[in-house]
Amino acid sequence: MDYKLTYISKLFQKTSNKIYEHYIITRIWHLLNNNDIEMIAQQYVRLENKYALTDIYFPQFDIHVEVNEPAHYITPEKIELDINRNESIINISNHQIKIFDCRKPIEEIHKDIDDFIICIKSLISNQIKNSTYKPWNPNQDRNPLYWKEQKTISSNDNISFNNVEDICTLFDANFSKTKRGFLRKGAIAHPQNHNFIIWWPSSKKRQKWRNFYDAEKSIIIEENIDQEKNLNHLKYLLNANETRILFYQYKDFLGLTSYRFKGAFKLDREESGNKKIIIWKKISDKFHLTTCEIV
Amino acid sequence: MDYKLTYISKLFQKTSNKIYEHYIITRIWHLLNNNDIEMIAQQYVRLENKYALTDIYFPQFDIHVEVNEPAHYITPEKIELDINRNESIINISNHQIKIFDCRKPIEEIHKDIDDFIICIKSLISNQIKNSTYKPWNPNQDRNPLYWKEQKTISSNDNISFNNVEDICTLFDANFSKTKRGFLRKGAIAHPQNHNFIIWWPSSKKRQKWRNFYDAEKSIIIEENIDQEKNLNHLKYLLNANETRILFYQYKDFLGLTSYRFKGAFKLDREESGNKKIIIWKKISDKFHLTTCEIV
Repeated sequence: MDYKLTYISKLFQKTSNKIYEHYIITRIWHLLNNNDIEMIAQQYVRLENKYALTDIYFPQFDIHVEVNEPAHYITPEKIELDINRNESIINISNHQIKIFDCRKPIEEIHKDIDDFIICIKSLISNQIKNSTYKPWNPNQDRNPLYWKEQKTISSNDNISFNNVEDICTLFDANFSKTKRGFLRKGAIAHPQNHNFIIWWPSSKKRQKWRNFYDAEKSIIIEENIDQEKNLNHLKYLLNANETRILFYQYKDFLGLTSYRFKGAFKLDREESGNKKIIIWKKISDKFHLTTCEIV
Repeated sequence: MDYKLTYISKLFQKTSNKIYEHYIITRIWHLLNNNDIEMIAQQYVRLENKYALTDIYFPQFDIHVEVNEPAHYITPEKIELDINRNESIINISNHQIKIFDCRKPIEEIHKDIDDFIICIKSLISNQIKNSTYKPWNPNQDRNPLYWKEQKTISSNDNISFNNVEDICTLFDANFSKTKRGFLRKGAIAHPQNHNFIIWWPSSKKRQKWRNFYDAEKSIIIEENIDQEKNLNHLKYLLNANETRILFYQYKDFLGLTSYRFKGAFKLDREESGNKKIIIWKKISDKFHLTTCEIV
């Protein structure tokens, strides 16, 4: 099946509980009528000491859509909470928010959507003029051969692979060496420079190892449930000079296991030594595939 | 909330299980971009000795839409069954069917939908030219004052009321007389001619009475669960000269109880006498509100 068709169809399905929100989201997509525009449902936005999930996010334009079903207007307190939350999103993320009010008659809602679409189309025109327009291209984002040609990868590029074989293809690493009998190793050394370790950890426990990735702090904690093994591993790492090239395993929106590039990480020696925990800290978003330069 | 917005939003929600079908249905509605077009989900079509439910039906144009998800093409037998079923629908109902194949890439599906929309638009133009175009107007269909002005009502007019009060308004009948203490009577005599009984039966049992409406045979069976009362009532009716003006109670698509005008009915004396069952048979689709003429 067509990837974009499946992606958007699933997005529609996931938003079908709130019937008016769903009506507006389907209408925006169909009337935009442009398969190069990405929509993300339930986008996480970090606020000061909490977070928000917006109904739809257009990552190419940093615009969120919020559809206010009648329940949003139940009390003045609810209305004020909504306004404060939206102001926080705008101030902290520097993104824009477009609000739709579904209490309006169908004709007015249609007019609001038409206006929004004109706005998005004009943003596209501007980006094309400034050569900053990046069409939504999930097939390319998931294709290691495409990224190999780019030579440098960045965690801002939305690089996401279907499997470990694709990660190995990117670096010309020997995929067959990632297998250990029936087991799969969690990492492989970079073929040009063995100080760089290509790593695909998961938050799920695998062979007594588990990992906690914290996007806010840009760290990842590596842990063996056996405390002795944990300490021995830490001791080894404190004496080594590893850089980890991180592809974090996650379930994508379609429910498929995927590996997203998160940047280059080095051991946080001070924190790790103090706390006796293996803490990797991001040192760069970018990485050169063959020279291993962190740009 | 806006009735059409709620109706279409609920229709979207009810079709959201099959993700590709849902994508196509939402796209047809939004790109048609015409609030005067009615769509009906899961339309019942009578075939020879069975029936079919089509995905979407456009009653103004007698066109059904069938969206074939990948499962439709699993075996040659399944494909042939589908073809036979669709041929039966076309032959028996004289309607048209438009098939969408969701195994195609998104661009081709979009092209198929664009073509279908051009087809519907040209049908609208033709109907407007021939003065046969009837815009979808559920608010009017449910408004007794509108139908009062028309003077004659027809079961082909899709007349559906929200409550018994609206039925009384249509005939200038005294609504307060429909109440009997805490109970609600199931009928009231026509104010101009007491041989005509305005009747709003339900298939649900009410005060030991229940009714079976059979659309295929255009009959309605009236029954009291007490066999003696049933026979006494039949005896009374055989000596009377009643015509029943039928508003059949049903749950509409939005889950609301509604009363749809089904025509004028008279006792089928022969069948009722033979079978000792009260059987009412349709004598006319049309009825004049004040003269009681069946036109």
